[in-house]
Amino acid sequence: MRIDEITSNEFEEIVKRDPVIILPIGATESHGPHLPLGTDTFQPEYIASVLSERFPERILVAPTLPYGLHSTTRDVPGTIDITFDALRAVVTDILDSMVRQRIRHIVVISGHAGGSHMAALTEACRRTAEGCADLDIMLFSDFYIAEDCDVAEGRDGDGHAGFLETSRMLHIRSDLVRDIRPSGSYVDVGYKVLGDPRGKMPQGIVGDTADASAEYGERINEHIIREIERMLS
Amino acid sequence: MRIDEITSNEFEEIVKRDPVIILPIGATESHGPHLPLGTDTFQPEYIASVLSERFPERILVAPTLPYGLHSTTRDVPGTIDITFDALRAVVTDILDSMVRQRIRHIVVISGHAGGSHMAALTEACRRTAEGCADLDIMLFSDFYIAEDCDVAEGRDGDGHAGFLETSRMLHIRSDLVRDIRPSGSYVDVGYKVLGDPRGKMPQGIVGDTADASAEYGERINEHIIREIERMLS
Amino acid sequence: MRIDEITSNEFEEIVKRDPVIILPIGATESHGPHLPLGTDTFQPEYIASVLSERFPERILVAPTLPYGLHSTTRDVPGTIDITFDALRAVVTDILDSMVRQRIRHIVVISGHAGGSHMAALTEACRRTAEGCADLDIMLFSDFYIAEDCDVAEGRDGDGHAGFLETSRMLHIRSDLVRDIRPSGSYVDVGYKVLGDPRGKMPQGIVGDTADASAEYGERINEHIIREIERMLS
Amino acid sequence: MRIDEITSNEFEEIVKRDPVIILPIGATESHGPHLPLGTDTFQPEYIASVLSERFPERILVAPTLPYGLHSTTRDVPGTIDITFDALRAVVTDILDSMVRQRIRHIVVISGHAGGSHMAALTEACRRTAEGCADLDIMLFSDFYIAEDCDVAEGRDGDGHAGFLETSRMLHIRSDLVRDIRPSGSYVDVGYKVLGDPRGKMPQGIVGDTADASAEYGERINEHIIREIERMLS
Amino acid sequence: MRIDEITSNEFEEIVKRDPVIILPIGATESHGPHLPLGTDTFQPEYIASVLSERFPERILVAPTLPYGLHSTTRDVPGTIDITFDALRAVVTDILDSMVRQRIRHIVVISGHAGGSHMAALTEACRRTAEGCADLDIMLFSDFYIAEDCDVAEGRDGDGHAGFLETSRMLHIRSDLVRDIRPSGSYVDVGYKVLGDPRGKMPQGIVGDTADASAEYGERINEHIIREIERMLS
Amino acid sequence: MRIDEITSNEFEEIVKRDPVIILPIGATESHGPHLPLGTDTFQPEYIASVLSERFPERILVAPTLPYGLHSTTRDVPGTIDITFDALRAVVTDILDSMVRQRIRHIVVISGHAGGSHMAALTEACRRTAEGCADLDIMLFSDFYIAEDCDVAEGRDGDGHAGFLETSRMLHIRSDLVRDIRPSGSYVDVGYKVLGDPRGKMPQGIVGDTADASAEYGERINEHIIREIERMLS
Repeated sequence: MRIDEITSNEFEEIVKRDPVIILPIGATESHGPHLPLGTDTFQPEYIASVLSERFPERILVAPTLPYGLHSTTRDVPGTIDITFDALRAVVTDILDSMVRQRIRHIVVISGHAGGSHMAALTEACRRTAEGCADLDIMLFSDFYIAEDCDVAEGRDGDGHAGFLETSRMLHIRSDLVRDIRPSGSYVDVGYKVLGDPRGKMPQGIVGDTADASAEYGERINEHIIREIERMLS
Repeated sequence: MRIDEITSNEFEEIVKRDPVIILPIGATESHGPHLPLGTDTFQPEYIASVLSERFPERILVAPTLPYGLHSTTRDVPGTIDITFDALRAVVTDILDSMVRQRIRHIVVISGHAGGSHMAALTEACRRTAEGCADLDIMLFSDFYIAEDCDVAEGRDGDGHAGFLETSRMLHIRSDLVRDIRPSGSYVDVGYKVLGDPRGKMPQGIVGDTADASAEYGERINEHIIREIERMLS
Repeated sequence: MRIDEITSNEFEEIVKRDPVIILPIGATESHGPHLPLGTDTFQPEYIASVLSERFPERILVAPTLPYGLHSTTRDVPGTIDITFDALRAVVTDILDSMVRQRIRHIVVISGHAGGSHMAALTEACRRTAEGCADLDIMLFSDFYIAEDCDVAEGRDGDGHAGFLETSRMLHIRSDLVRDIRPSGSYVDVGYKVLGDPRGKMPQGIVGDTADASAEYGERINEHIIREIERMLS
Repeated sequence: MRIDEITSNEFEEIVKRDPVIILPIGATESHGPHLPLGTDTFQPEYIASVLSERFPERILVAPTLPYGLHSTTRDVPGTIDITFDALRAVVTDILDSMVRQRIRHIVVISGHAGGSHMAALTEACRRTAEGCADLDIMLFSDFYIAEDCDVAEGRDGDGHAGFLETSRMLHIRSDLVRDIRPSGSYVDVGYKVLGDPRGKMPQGIVGDTADASAEYGERINEHIIREIERMLS
Repeated sequence: MRIDEITSNEFEEIVKRDPVIILPIGATESHGPHLPLGTDTFQPEYIASVLSERFPERILVAPTLPYGLHSTTRDVPGTIDITFDALRAVVTDILDSMVRQRIRHIVVISGHAGGSHMAALTEACRRTAEGCADLDIMLFSDFYIAEDCDVAEGRDGDGHAGFLETSRMLHIRSDLVRDIRPSGSYVDVGYKVLGDPRGKMPQGIVGDTADASAEYGERINEHIIREIERMLS
Repeated sequence: MRIDEITSNEFEEIVKRDPVIILPIGATESHGPHLPLGTDTFQPEYIASVLSERFPERILVAPTLPYGLHSTTRDVPGTIDITFDALRAVVTDILDSMVRQRIRHIVVISGHAGGSHMAALTEACRRTAEGCADLDIMLFSDFYIAEDCDVAEGRDGDGHAGFLETSRMLHIRSDLVRDIRPSGSYVDVGYKVLGDPRGKMPQGIVGDTADASAEYGERINEHIIREIERMLS
C-alpha cells in the first residue's frame, strides 16, 4: 500500500499494527545518453512497490522524495539537485513527522548512492534515531545491494548508469531506455576535490552496458528485494 | 513530457527551445474520511500532466515534491509534514538548480494552499527571482483557481477536502475516493494562534461533499487548466 | 500602562494579576506622498495605547518593534526592512522572553499586513504557542479589522496608504499627514513573483484618499478598539 | 527629524544631501527599584533627538529598536530580551537596508552596554562595513561616554542603574523616576560563567544614587551630545 | 616548517613561492585500551611534519584541528567530538582564510576516517573549491593510504585502533602505547542506524594488534609519505 | 596530563576523581615582525602545561583549538581565522561533549583577547552553563592576567605583540623570537567600525618591546599561573 492512496482513518488503523514504512529517496540526475533522468527514482520506487505488494499487511510506502545531492553531475544537463542542508532538513522533518505519527519501523532506500548524498541521509537518520529510543531505522542505497548480486560478479567498477542500472531499468521501465548501449569509465583524480567535477566522468556513465538486459535486471531487482526481506525478517 | 522520463541529451535540446517547467508541490495530509492522503499531490500532478500533453513542445513537468507544511492537520493521523525552513530550502534549491540549468520559465503549482506553506514557497520563489533578472516565475495553488470556477458559486466557505477537492478527485482518481460524502466546517477561533490547532477543523473537512461528482470535478479541472493556459499565453 | 515606563518591581506585581500584553509590530515603509514612513507604527501604537488607558488594570503595552518585512515597497525611498528570518527570530525571542516572565496572555498587533510579514509573525507565534501549553496568544493586523468597518463599505480594494490608512492617520497624527490626497491602484501581475516588484504599485498607494478625514479615521479606530475589546472579553 | 515622521519623497530628497542617520538601540530591562524598564531606550533616544534638533539639515533619527541582549538581568522581573543571533540579524538587516537606500553615514548608539550585546552589534556593523567600501559607520554605547564626563570623576564602579543613569533619567524623564535612591554593588565572581547570573547584582543596581540629580544629568547628557558632535565634525 | 613557528613577514615571503599547505585534522577519540586518545592527531601530524622536513622549500604545515566527528565512539570514555555543522564550519573558514591569504595548494589530511566526519570535510573542501577556480585542493585520510600498504595485505578488516594504527603509533610515539595488544571486531548491524551505536564495536577496537610493531609502523608511515610525495609531484 | 596522551580507560578513571579540564584556545595570527604566528597558542598551552604538571592529580589539559577570530589583523599576512559562528559552534560542541563525558570543572584559557573572539567564547560557555546546572566553568584570556602583573606597571597601553607577549615568548619559546625589538602603537579611530581595519595597527604591534626579556617573561608567566591556582583553590 502507498501512503498517498489511503485515508487518514486507514492510516490510523494500520499504524496500530506497527508497520514498516519504506521511504524511497529518488533523484533527478543525468544518467548517460540512454537512461532517463529519473532513473534513481524509478529503481527504489519499484523495489518498495514490490515489497509492499508481497507484504501488504506489513509494509507501507511513503511518497518518494525525487531530489537529491549530486556532486559530479551537478552541471551536466538535466541534473536538478538540492544542497546537503536542504536534503538533511527535509528528510529529518519527514522522519520526525513519522515518529510523531507513532511509526517505529522505517526503511530509507536511496536510488542515488553518492557519498555526500548518503552522508546527508545518514545525518538525518541518526538525529532522528538519537531522539527516539525505540525507533528501528535502516538506511541504504539499493545500488549497494545490487553490487553484491551474482550478476555483478566480474564487473568490478560498474557504476553510474552502467550495466547494473541499465539492466534494472530495462526490467522496470524498458519504455524509457533509449536504444544505445554506451560504455564509459571514471577518470581517476585521486584525492583532488574539484570545483567543477564534470571531467571525472567524461562519458557520463561508468561501466559497459553492451550486454545489459531485462533478464539480468529482473535477477538484480529480485536479489535486492530478497535481501531486504531478509533484513526485515 | 516529464523531466524524469527524458534523458540528459533530450533535456539539453528542449532547454534550447526555452520551455516552461511546471513544478508541482504536493502534500501528504489528512483529507477527511473519504479522500486519500495524497489528494494535494494528485491534483497539481494531474493539472501539470494535462497541460504538458496539450503543449508537448513547450511544457515540461518536473518531479513533484510530495511533502508540505501543515499547521491545522499536523497531528491528525496520516499527515507527514516538513517545517517552513525545510520547505523553503528544498524549493529554493530546486529553483536555483533549474536556473543554473538555464531554465527561464517556471510555474510552481501547489496542491496545498495553507498560509504558512504558501509563504515558504513565496519566500523561495522571491529569493530566486531576486537573484535572476530574466527569470519568469509564477506561484499559485490550483485551489485558488478552483474557487473562481462557476461550479464553486454559492458554495462560499468550501475548503479543505470539501466539494471542490472531492469533485476533482472523483474526476482524477475516483478509485481512491471512499464511499462516504461527509460535511464539516471550520470552527472560528478568531485570531488565536493555537499550539494544538486540531480543534479548528473537528470533522477534518470544510464544506459539504454531498453532491460532489466527477462531472463537476472535470469542469473544475478544465477551468483550472484553461486559466493556466491563459496565464502562459 | 507601558512596560517601558514601569519598574521591575511594578512589573512583577502586575504579572501576578495575569495581565494581557499587547506587542505592537510597526514598520518603516514608504506610504505614498502624503503619509509618514512610520504610518504602520503609529496605528497599532495608538490602538494599544487607547486599550491600555481604558483597561489600565488589565492591559500592558510592550515596546513597539518598528521594523518589518516589505516585498513590494522594498526599494521605494524610505522603506527600511528586515528579512523573514530576522523578523521571525526577534519576535520569537520577545515572545519566549515574555513566557519566561510568566506572561500568559499576549496580543500581537501588526500595522503592516503584507503576506510574508504576517507569515513570519505567524511562525513566531506558533512556535511559542507550541512550546507553552497554557499560553493564550492572538495575532492580527489592525488593517484586517479596519477593512470590516462600516466606513469601509463600498471601498473594495482600498489598501496600502489608501482611504482607511489616511483617515486613521488624520485622526491619530494629523500633523504628519501632508496636504495632498492621492489615489492609486494595484497593477495586477497575476501570480507572477517579481524580482523587482515596484511596478505593482506605481502610485505607491492603493485606493482613493480624496474624502479621507479625521472623522472617518476616528470611526475606524474606534471600531478596531471595540473589536479587540470584544475579542478579549 | 525622525525617519518615521517624514514621507518617502522627503526621505529621498534628504538622502541626496548625504545625511547622518542615528540608529538608537534601546532595551527593556530591569533597572533597579527606581528606574523604568525602558531606561536604556529613553537615554539614546534623547541624545539622538537633541542632536537632530541641533543639526536638522544633517542628522536624521531612525526608529529605535527597543530590545537587546541581557545576560545578568535576564531572569529579573521586567527584562524582555532577545538572543545574540536575533539581535545581530535584525541590526544587520536594518543596516543593509539603509545601505541599499544609499545612506552612507550611520551612527549606532546603544543605551545598554553589556558585553555580549555590544558584541552582537559590533558583528552586525562589521559585516555591513565589510560589504560596503564607502560606508562610514560608528558604534558605541552612550554609557561609555557618560563615564568620561567630569561629573563621573570619583565615582569609579558606578554602573547599571547607578548615579549616572539615575541623573540622566532625572533630566530626561523625571516623571518616570521613583522616589527612592538605592545603592548597590556588583559581586565579583571572577571569570566564572554562570548559568544563572542573578547573584552577580543582588541589589539590581551598581553604584550609589543618593546624590543623583537632574542637574548632574543635564551635564552628563550635554557632555555626551558634545562628544558626538565632535566625532561627527 | 610549521605555520605557527614563522612570523608574518616570513609567511608573506613563503606564499610568494606558491607553497603547499598541509592542514592536519586530528581527533580526540577513544582508541582501545592501548592507544592514546590523540592517536588520530599524532598520525597526520607526523606525516605532515616529515613531509615538511623533506621539502622545506615547498611544504608548510598549518596548526592541527584536534577535534572531529565520531558516531560510533561518541559515548565511549575519552571521546570529545564536535558536530557535522561545527566541523564543516570551522574547516570551511580555515580554508577560506587560506585562500584569502593567497594560498593555492592545500592538502587536508585527516587522521580519523569516519564516514560523516569525512563528509563534513568534503563539504568544506568542495565549497571552497567551487568558490576559487585556481585552487588546488586534496582531501584524504592517511588511514586510506595505510590500507593500501603491502604490510596491510592479508589483514582485511583491520580498522579502528587495530594493527595498522598500533604499528604506526609504536613508530611515532611508542611512549604513549600501553603494554597490551588487544584484538576486536566490528559487530555487523547491517544498515541499521543506531541511536546508541556503542554496541557496534564491543572491544573498542577492530583488528588484531598481536604482532603490531614499530618496524611495521615505520614501513606504513613511509608508504604514506611516499604516496603523498607522488601525489604532489 | 594531556588528554590526547591518555587512554580511554585512564580518562574514565580520572573523571571519577572530578578533575579540572583546561581547554586552551590558541590562534594563528600575525604578531609583528618578531613573534611567531602561533604566539597566542604557545602562551596558554604553556600555562596549562605547567599547571597540569604541578597538579597532576587534579588538572587535565585538553587539546588546543589553534584558530580564533581576528578583526584587526584579518588581512595581515599569516593570520588564518574563523568566523564568530564557527568559533562559537566548535567551542560549544567541545564543551557539550565534555559535559556528556561527566566533566564538571572546565577552565577555558584563550591566548587571543580580542573583543569579538572573547564574545564568541562567552556565548559558547554561557550556553553550556545554562544547560548544565552543576557545571563550574571559567573563561578568560591569560593576557588579562598578564596585564595585572607588577611587571606591567607603568606600561599602560602595552598590547598586541608588545612587551608582555614578547617577554613571555622569550621565556616560553625563545628559539621562535626573532632578533628585533619593534615598538608600535594603536591608531585611535574612535568608535568607527572599519571594513578594512589594518590601518588601526600600522606597525602590527602595540607597545615597546625594547626591554622585553625572558626574565620578565618568567615573572609574568609565574604570576598568571599563581593567579589561576588561586582561582582554582
